[in-house]
Amino acid sequence: PVQCCQREIYMDYNATTSLEPEVIDAITEALRDAWGNPSSNYIAGAKAKSIINQSRENVARMVGGKAEDIIFTSGGTEANNLVLHTAVEHFRRNCRAAEQGEGHQNGCTGLPHIITSNVEHDSVKLAAEHLQREGKADVTFVPVSKVTARVEVEDIIAMVRPNTCLVSIMLANNETGVIMPVQEICQRVKCLNKQREQLRILIHTDAAQALGKIRVDACELGVDYLTIVGHKFYGPRIGALYVSGPGTRTPLYPMLFGGGQERNFRPGTENTQMIAGLGKVCFLLCILYGTVRFLFQATFKDRLHFNSHYPGSDILPNTCNVSILGPALQGWRVLSNCRRLLASVGAACHSDSGNRPSHILLNCGVPTEVAANALRLSMGRSTTKEDVDAVVEDLRETVLLLEEMNS
Amino acid sequence: PVQCCQREIYMDYNATTSLEPEVIDAITEALRDAWGNPSSNYIAGAKAKSIINQSRENVARMVGGKAEDIIFTSGGTEANNLVLHTAVEHFRRNCRAAEQGEGHQNGCTGLPHIITSNVEHDSVKLAAEHLQREGKADVTFVPVSKVTARVEVEDIIAMVRPNTCLVSIMLANNETGVIMPVQEICQRVKCLNKQREQLRILIHTDAAQALGKIRVDACELGVDYLTIVGHKFYGPRIGALYVSGPGTRTPLYPMLFGGGQERNFRPGTENTQMIAGLGKVCFLLCILYGTVRFLFQATFKDRLHFNSHYPGSDILPNTCNVSILGPALQGWRVLSNCRRLLASVGAACHSDSGNRPSHILLNCGVPTEVAANALRLSMGRSTTKEDVDAVVEDLRETVLLLEEMNS
Repeated sequence: PVQCCQREIYMDYNATTSLEPEVIDAITEALRDAWGNPSSNYIAGAKAKSIINQSRENVARMVGGKAEDIIFTSGGTEANNLVLHTAVEHFRRNCRAAEQGEGHQNGCTGLPHIITSNVEHDSVKLAAEHLQREGKADVTFVPVSKVTARVEVEDIIAMVRPNTCLVSIMLANNETGVIMPVQEICQRVKCLNKQREQLRILIHTDAAQALGKIRVDACELGVDYLTIVGHKFYGPRIGALYVSGPGTRTPLYPMLFGGGQERNFRPGTENTQMIAGLGKVCFLLCILYGTVRFLFQATFKDRLHFNSHYPGSDILPNTCNVSILGPALQGWRVLSNCRRLLASVGAACHSDSGNRPSHILLNCGVPTEVAANALRLSMGRSTTKEDVDAVVEDLRETVLLLEEMNS
Repeated sequence: PVQCCQREIYMDYNATTSLEPEVIDAITEALRDAWGNPSSNYIAGAKAKSIINQSRENVARMVGGKAEDIIFTSGGTEANNLVLHTAVEHFRRNCRAAEQGEGHQNGCTGLPHIITSNVEHDSVKLAAEHLQREGKADVTFVPVSKVTARVEVEDIIAMVRPNTCLVSIMLANNETGVIMPVQEICQRVKCLNKQREQLRILIHTDAAQALGKIRVDACELGVDYLTIVGHKFYGPRIGALYVSGPGTRTPLYPMLFGGGQERNFRPGTENTQMIAGLGKVCFLLCILYGTVRFLFQATFKDRLHFNSHYPGSDILPNTCNVSILGPALQGWRVLSNCRRLLASVGAACHSDSGNRPSHILLNCGVPTEVAANALRLSMGRSTTKEDVDAVVEDLRETVLLLEEMNS
């Protein structure tokens, strides 16, 4: 091909991302209209408060938590530091209470112990090293496998001591892209916690690199803390910390003191505009990647089979592989009758296999009659909520038509 | 007057302010074009880096410091907490060094001692109380005078102990608007520091409420630390800490650890857009309120007398009372010959005193022949840099004309 123009091509999305136009609009609108102090009682404050609440809901939905589990922070660095600070502080307070006979003796002598990997972001690594250097904690940096670049679950578990108070493992590495077995680590640590007499081991994952790229569900993962960084997934320079029941089920000790914002966990006048932007990007991604499932389910109910949900496996969030069950609803037939939807029944390189079901799906254990009906919808960043609505309606009408023809 | 419409009137500018349109534009532009990671080496990163550097210059100019004295933080709460943390940490490290024979013995036994007032913002008050409760510091909350609502300099000095490591007094109170005698406190503490063998006492002022309302010059005040909060003066929700030579002349110990941004004093990917907005508002205010002086001086040089600079007195930053010296340049004559400038020679309520010099200026010690030439220019928020340029040019031409007529 002739080289006609040399446009610069950005391929450093793990460093930071450009912002979605809708996100910029949300921020600009909030700069103009929601500049009131969210703590003020009049209407200007109420508007800001309402934007923050809506964003909190959206961020929570993005990571599979409740609104009250989300604490907005200035960014991922602060969120990660806050978790390490909390774990050490929680251990220290419990020790002191035990010494004073206030709590049951839980064998805490010596320093709290933190387990992390040797490939974490500096905001975990250096914060941990600082605690170690200051004599406030012992830290074990578990090396990742030189073969898989993953941290091995067994290696983590082998390092647990009576004083271990925190395991912090990133969800995906920023340099290699390798996804870490956080869910398995959580399961194993929770089993250990049930057997322990000591304080339970808290679990944190820095999801900065994973969010917006793979499906992230804090509840399914089983973590106590999960770090969220807006500018890594087309949002603004602000962060949040998911905490499973902050101050109740899971301890959280503030590093800053002030005006009581964020339920005293993170005081300081809220950055309404950046929070608005973070909420917007979470909303956009939820709609695109998450709510598709719900839209399909609401329309086709129990006639639907998802071909891309496997226990313990991560899936690309932009990919929705579904079968609408029924004798006349083979994938190729549905697609050729749709008025607007352009999609495929499987990989483009297998399109010469005609109307046979995807051998990939068959190999994954999907029954033949289900695989025959598979539709692979893959969405891009420019796909809108309206597009998804239209596609579901298009499919609904096509299914009606095909069933009438078949009856 | 007939009550025709009831528009809501916002009078809570000490809680937060709306943003200047130019500030919103600067933020929106940076959201679109400067989303690159400032730490990245390619052009997108360089653009962000350059915006941050420019903002740092502007913020420094606003508070009378150097660019390297400015550390961007997430807001005032973080800046205030960082100062208290630093003072305690500095004391602790010096004690330890002294114990280990590394430093000269400076008599530090016991806890570091902090002096502050009983009318500080919660981000100073609660941070100090937390240090006290945790057994990390002793704190004296000096009550303000029930007559003047100012904290008395003598009351502060009387509380100094050998272990005193920090005096933190706000520049202006957020509820009463009272301006505190920070400059005098600094002078007295510096004298004490010269006589002390112990670690010098550091001085901090929270200038959140003062900036944009009165002229603030950290160097003239003599403080080591000064807190800057964007959203209190028509800027965005971000803050900065002025530190007089951070890490060299004045200690600064980070609370967060991570990617090395802000010279490791405050890591975390920079909030380029909010920093751009903060820089913009500082630039606008400097131009309007500060640079007017320089523009006049550049044009009229030693023929200029400022009638509003008195040692030790604060002045309204939007008010510029100047006399252009010369026999034919009485204020009323200059103003009546200006083509564009609308201003006055003094208070509007004294306009019936004709062409006599302002008795206010005379009472303030301005010589009669200087007071006769006085021009009172007072600027509003909608005054632009172009307006100021045009006014100086108008005055320059008028002065030339009047002198030709007089020669």
